[in-house]
Amino acid sequence: MTNSNAPDAPDAVDPAVVAELGRLRDSIDNIDAAVVHMLAERFKCTQQVGHLKAEHALPPADPAREARQISRLRELAENAKLDPAFAEKLLNFIISEVIRHHEQIAAGNSSPSSSSPSGV
Amino acid sequence: MTNSNAPDAPDAVDPAVVAELGRLRDSIDNIDAAVVHMLAERFKCTQQVGHLKAEHALPPADPAREARQISRLRELAENAKLDPAFAEKLLNFIISEVIRHHEQIAAGNSSPSSSSPSGV
Repeated sequence: MTNSNAPDAPDAVDPAVVAELGRLRDSIDNIDAAVVHMLAERFKCTQQVGHLKAEHALPPADPAREARQISRLRELAENAKLDPAFAEKLLNFIISEVIRHHEQIAAGNSSPSSSSPSGV
Repeated sequence: MTNSNAPDAPDAVDPAVVAELGRLRDSIDNIDAAVVHMLAERFKCTQQVGHLKAEHALPPADPAREARQISRLRELAENAKLDPAFAEKLLNFIISEVIRHHEQIAAGNSSPSSSSPSGV
């Protein structure tokens, strides 16, 4: 079997299990590609937000907006049967990256160009 | 302005800036909803992987598979102009959650049902 998503010791495992694992991993890989592309779009938006905030001297963080985002995402997660605590941790993880970028922009370390891989 | 995505002190800010910030935040909220739903699907897949692994006594973690995922996602991120280091950190964050679930399943603390919010 040449499927790179098969487990690494397939001879010890039922071929039907190997095939099923490969099928699930293909789906996981498709979803990960979609998430990466959605997050690339998200960072394009937050990059614009960062520039707007820097130009108009608005603070990089906005606790009231973040509280609304967290409460909305927890509800969406619950409806989608995703652990709301995980969704909240994930959003905090993304927001902390965004704030780091906003601070860089505000510090004039500005405009990581869209051609730079670090330009999230 | 009643837009809940407007910044919290709009009277100090040019209304055009407030409107632009609201527009960008609406896009961010749409993307976040899409990501939450993609991740709910992803956890449905990894949940099935966890059960397969537990039934066939496969180890919860698979370092070779994870190394392939990380290298592929870094490349996808780079092409999408997303920071590859961020993509890698994000995948590690998600994988550590998945492994926690696989260990719970393997420990027989099994089958968080799909109706349970913690059943990721």
